[in-house]
Amino acid sequence: MSRMLVLIVALVVTAAGGARAAAEPEVAHFTLGNGLELVVVPDHRAPVVTHMIWYKVGAADETPGKSGLAHFLEHLMFKGTRQNPGDRFSQAVAAIGGQENAFTASDYTGFFQRVPREHLKEMMAFEADRMTGLVLSDEVVRPELNVVLEEQNMRVANNPNGRLGEQMDAALYLNHPYGRPVIGWRHEIETLSRDDALAFYRRFYTPNNAIVVVAGDVTPEEAKADAEDTYGKVAPRAAIGPRRRPMEPVEEAPRTVTLADARVEQPSVSRYYLAPSRTTAKPGESAALDVLAHVLGGGDNSRLYRTLVVDQGIAINAGAFYSGTALDYGKLGVYGLPKPGRTLHEVEAAIDAVLDDVSEHGITADELDRAKVRLIADAVYAQDNQATLARRYGAALATGETVEMVRDWPQSIRAVTADAVRAAARTWLNPRASVTGYLVHSLKGEEKHS
Amino acid sequence: MSRMLVLIVALVVTAAGGARAAAEPEVAHFTLGNGLELVVVPDHRAPVVTHMIWYKVGAADETPGKSGLAHFLEHLMFKGTRQNPGDRFSQAVAAIGGQENAFTASDYTGFFQRVPREHLKEMMAFEADRMTGLVLSDEVVRPELNVVLEEQNMRVANNPNGRLGEQMDAALYLNHPYGRPVIGWRHEIETLSRDDALAFYRRFYTPNNAIVVVAGDVTPEEAKADAEDTYGKVAPRAAIGPRRRPMEPVEEAPRTVTLADARVEQPSVSRYYLAPSRTTAKPGESAALDVLAHVLGGGDNSRLYRTLVVDQGIAINAGAFYSGTALDYGKLGVYGLPKPGRTLHEVEAAIDAVLDDVSEHGITADELDRAKVRLIADAVYAQDNQATLARRYGAALATGETVEMVRDWPQSIRAVTADAVRAAARTWLNPRASVTGYLVHSLKGEEKHS
Repeated sequence: MSRMLVLIVALVVTAAGGARAAAEPEVAHFTLGNGLELVVVPDHRAPVVTHMIWYKVGAADETPGKSGLAHFLEHLMFKGTRQNPGDRFSQAVAAIGGQENAFTASDYTGFFQRVPREHLKEMMAFEADRMTGLVLSDEVVRPELNVVLEEQNMRVANNPNGRLGEQMDAALYLNHPYGRPVIGWRHEIETLSRDDALAFYRRFYTPNNAIVVVAGDVTPEEAKADAEDTYGKVAPRAAIGPRRRPMEPVEEAPRTVTLADARVEQPSVSRYYLAPSRTTAKPGESAALDVLAHVLGGGDNSRLYRTLVVDQGIAINAGAFYSGTALDYGKLGVYGLPKPGRTLHEVEAAIDAVLDDVSEHGITADELDRAKVRLIADAVYAQDNQATLARRYGAALATGETVEMVRDWPQSIRAVTADAVRAAARTWLNPRASVTGYLVHSLKGEEKHS
Repeated sequence: MSRMLVLIVALVVTAAGGARAAAEPEVAHFTLGNGLELVVVPDHRAPVVTHMIWYKVGAADETPGKSGLAHFLEHLMFKGTRQNPGDRFSQAVAAIGGQENAFTASDYTGFFQRVPREHLKEMMAFEADRMTGLVLSDEVVRPELNVVLEEQNMRVANNPNGRLGEQMDAALYLNHPYGRPVIGWRHEIETLSRDDALAFYRRFYTPNNAIVVVAGDVTPEEAKADAEDTYGKVAPRAAIGPRRRPMEPVEEAPRTVTLADARVEQPSVSRYYLAPSRTTAKPGESAALDVLAHVLGGGDNSRLYRTLVVDQGIAINAGAFYSGTALDYGKLGVYGLPKPGRTLHEVEAAIDAVLDDVSEHGITADELDRAKVRLIADAVYAQDNQATLARRYGAALATGETVEMVRDWPQSIRAVTADAVRAAARTWLNPRASVTGYLVHSLKGEEKHS
């Protein structure tokens, strides 16, 4: 169930970093003259820094027919610039014992390095250079397209869970580009060109569309001075308007998707509900969804796990998640994996009964308290990880949250009431705004759901 | 079941006009110097002509987020021009006892008048004028938006069949803009502006993107001379490139959609399969789909009707259709309406058994012959209707077919073999490329399919 594991991990990561412990660092937030935002999270425990740059552009900003372009460009960003040709940047990171990576999502594209503190400015200079200096030749673009296609093979084409997730997103979003896979539809990836990548780069890679997050052994003033000496010298090269995407119509009808693959040995049923994101939610609503998802399906003590796995013994696993870091929509999800001899229908019916019960009767005071303690504790633990902390701030700011929202997240969790959780369940566990996915071995037989 | 009736009527219309009877008219096809195509179908039985102009632009050409724009512009085209302000064009048609109308689809937008033959050139002059002379003020645009929203209410929002069809299309097409409703998503219609309409108009309403079809009491030479004197004087005002839309990924997973509405008194199950259109099909394939749909569900003698309604007595109606007039994809559909006391599951299982039988064993020689006779006879009868004939040519040319393909359609039907029908069934009755829609009174109870 690698996809679900990824989603659960993502939840924990999302919940992390915002905890306001006693020892919480003071987060500084600047905007340079060219529009680039800088967030600094001091952390002096070790002489290292995590340096990330987040561009406010992702798969949901692609032109229809060019899906996968944001992710393809992320790969191509490692092909060198006029000033630093080839892999000189990566070699420099490796030479100082650093780590680097990059990632693409629907709303953002990010690059990061973790290096000894004295190399921060050097990293900034490299990133500032490749914000405008990228050089792409057909000789490097074509082989990289094959790398991306191979990644698509691994993550989706040869991964039944990945394929089901792709189909469920496409069915959940009837109009919004979150319905497109971040990696792209394979037949569209195949047609992406050097010109497509460069046009996208020139349109979106500009200081007024970027957020730099530095977490580590540096003061806000030092980081700001370094940023001004490097990023500050890059002129904005494109006007960036508001990010407006086609939105969903009123959700009218529950959907299902059945993915059959001969490699499936463990069937599963999962469901996505369209929900607000932290950015679009009313005050308190996304925190209530965090608590709801935790009570429903966060760990062995959750309603779903206890009911389906422990009490009824019909499932080998069951859970829930809420992913709320997004510009336009969040997602609430539940899933269950039947024990051998049990059907997806039985498991789905049991999940529905748990959801109905919470919508009708709400959660107990004990459940509420335990969820809060656990969610806040997880966030505090996650602060220990510099990269996690930086990532939380970057993802939040790239999707319309503020530094204050991240910082105050534990307070929001503390303020959640049982009534708010029941209201969230009643509002957002709405079958009309849902898609249910069945992962099965074959379409014939009792597992057929078409 | 008005939506399905519309679809069935559409099939008959689509099948019409192409018959090559002994008395078949010689169809003439010209291209004027400015790129405008002219098709003339002489019909001298009465002193009238049907004059249509088809623009090769429809809902599938809209920018995401602006759905409904093609249809909204169709309405606004009746608001007058500099030369013919207000409703002067419509008044002129009425004054001579003519009829007029307009229509929008995913691939085209059309306008037509049926008038006494001596007024043909006048109609051409009016249409040529409004190809470039449209005048729109906010005073006319805003009220017309309300008219369109009211039309959406009637056709979709207050029509459970219409809502289900909208949701099924959105679920069938994961990436292609055929998944958007032609009338638009309501929340996007509400935001359409005068500027949106004018920009769309200037981009797509140009002689090099138009097809004029004249059917009636006129010779090709007369019609051509009239067209050159009117349309021929309009300079192309936009370059029209190839029509490229985002295409579907490989279809992976059967989908379902359940639309519940308290007004539903007669539940139904229907299924759409993605199929080739006449334009995209391999030679012979779309004719085989015509025959397949007819044998499966064309009338009381069809497999589905006989099995479900007559023999098993579990349904009050059942049928099938193929709609093949489209630039990118056609659609094969089946449906059944359970008798009181029977469930959608029973009806769906019976439909599946009929489809499986045809895929496995094919159709009989007798079924093949009867389908051919009936399809060709329908087409010959349809030739009697001048507007139907004109519409068939216009729709075909606007979606990439040729005059020859329309003319030779009866021959294509005659050439279909039982093997070709079975091959079409095996290839295109593919659950992975299908969506099944359930229309129910409520989501609870035995009719729940989520």
